[in-house]
Amino acid sequence: MSFKFSSEIRVRLPETDVLGVVYHGCFFTYFDVGRMDYLRNLGLLEEFRTGESLNLIVHTAADFRSPARFDEVLLVYTRIRKIGDSSVTFEFRVDLKDDGRLVAKGDSVHSFIDSKTWKPHRVPEHFRKTVKKFEGSTLKMK
Amino acid sequence: MSFKFSSEIRVRLPETDVLGVVYHGCFFTYFDVGRMDYLRNLGLLEEFRTGESLNLIVHTAADFRSPARFDEVLLVYTRIRKIGDSSVTFEFRVDLKDDGRLVAKGDSVHSFIDSKTWKPHRVPEHFRKTVKKFEGSTLKMK
Amino acid sequence: MSFKFSSEIRVRLPETDVLGVVYHGCFFTYFDVGRMDYLRNLGLLEEFRTGESLNLIVHTAADFRSPARFDEVLLVYTRIRKIGDSSVTFEFRVDLKDDGRLVAKGDSVHSFIDSKTWKPHRVPEHFRKTVKKFEGSTLKMK
Amino acid sequence: MSFKFSSEIRVRLPETDVLGVVYHGCFFTYFDVGRMDYLRNLGLLEEFRTGESLNLIVHTAADFRSPARFDEVLLVYTRIRKIGDSSVTFEFRVDLKDDGRLVAKGDSVHSFIDSKTWKPHRVPEHFRKTVKKFEGSTLKMK
Repeated sequence: MSFKFSSEIRVRLPETDVLGVVYHGCFFTYFDVGRMDYLRNLGLLEEFRTGESLNLIVHTAADFRSPARFDEVLLVYTRIRKIGDSSVTFEFRVDLKDDGRLVAKGDSVHSFIDSKTWKPHRVPEHFRKTVKKFEGSTLKMK
Repeated sequence: MSFKFSSEIRVRLPETDVLGVVYHGCFFTYFDVGRMDYLRNLGLLEEFRTGESLNLIVHTAADFRSPARFDEVLLVYTRIRKIGDSSVTFEFRVDLKDDGRLVAKGDSVHSFIDSKTWKPHRVPEHFRKTVKKFEGSTLKMK
Repeated sequence: MSFKFSSEIRVRLPETDVLGVVYHGCFFTYFDVGRMDYLRNLGLLEEFRTGESLNLIVHTAADFRSPARFDEVLLVYTRIRKIGDSSVTFEFRVDLKDDGRLVAKGDSVHSFIDSKTWKPHRVPEHFRKTVKKFEGSTLKMK
Repeated sequence: MSFKFSSEIRVRLPETDVLGVVYHGCFFTYFDVGRMDYLRNLGLLEEFRTGESLNLIVHTAADFRSPARFDEVLLVYTRIRKIGDSSVTFEFRVDLKDDGRLVAKGDSVHSFIDSKTWKPHRVPEHFRKTVKKFEGSTLKMK
């Protein structure tokens, strides 16, 4: 996997749990921060969130490889791996900034929905072109 | 302080932090659960949340007396202490259910706002009467 | 899938987001509540969390089928589907209590680790027997 | 109030609620980020968190003046207003970065505790000197 975009996140106290490490559910928040940063960077954040098409998350998963602790700085790498007919698949990797240790990996699938008919909606052409231009040949598109 | 209403909450894992105790910010979520339970119990939840008047929190505070830990059961006591012209003041106490130890205390002040003019709005009569009937003489009302 | 255990959870205000529905990351907290309730019910909560073996989450995933909203009551169904050599796989389903509508599904995989050597550790016999007795023939065990 | 230190925080999706604005409880997380950044900046983060003295939060409060929304950038201003015998009082102000609008204000009081005897503990001299040097004459110290 090669990523062209990353976000920096410092672990906050409430994100840790009694085991002394980041609570696993918080990684989905980190993925969210990565996704929004990625889309903002491409000028697609508004298009993804609002307007004629709604965007719903339909699936997400994460693998946890090593713990992260309070005040550590994480690098959240984000890319769009696939654009299907009406869905977009993001991929994430979270490393410890300090030594590059892999902390977690994950993905999420989002579906475009027509805000009136509430039916699946083709991913807009402008969205496709912008992502294709950024990701290049590693992007799978339908 | 005497309370006529309480909610039971079991501490969840993500609510603890690396210090092994409930993260202090989570008590504001517990107060919220208490407030919503209280209002639902009096049939006022919808009235408080929606309709012609919006309800905004303008102040909240908490004192922390002793720690709470993962899987412990808390009793969140809730009452309305005061109804002002356009504001409502809640009061909270959180005890450990097991031994009655005081864990935290707090309050919150909410303001009724007209959803069109966005100006302070008198607390509705029905809301006043229902709370007065429940709380009795300990309620301060203007 | 057949589940023999469920937990009841009422959606809290901070669990919703600006889209008006439960933020997807909160379902991992709901799964956590289900898992802890399940283990407490079988008398395995302490064994799972502490002692000679640590328990680490290594994977989790969720599929989101329909939205849940503030104040709605959810039923979180929990079961252990598989016990491997050193891992345990939980399965979850979240329904709306009111009308039984499917809201989300998911799973999580946890690994037992020796707290001294930090190496994978066989799932203890007592844990295996207790789960087997509860789940019966639907449990896959190695 | 004059502040010499600020942190920048972008509002995350899970920090908003169904009302479309940042959930009020999240401001205590923002205060926490401000506090940790402030202490790290003065080289006091480790001293504040660990070692011979524990640090417990005993009180916090917030006033909410105007809403903040998803993806808006906030400036969290932090200062230490007072150092008592065994306590430290932080003060916070949260502004919208874009137009300087006041969003929230708050404070928190933390008590130094001896980690063995569990009794109040004088705020260490090194901590006092470092904060005094940074804050100057606006700091009240006992």
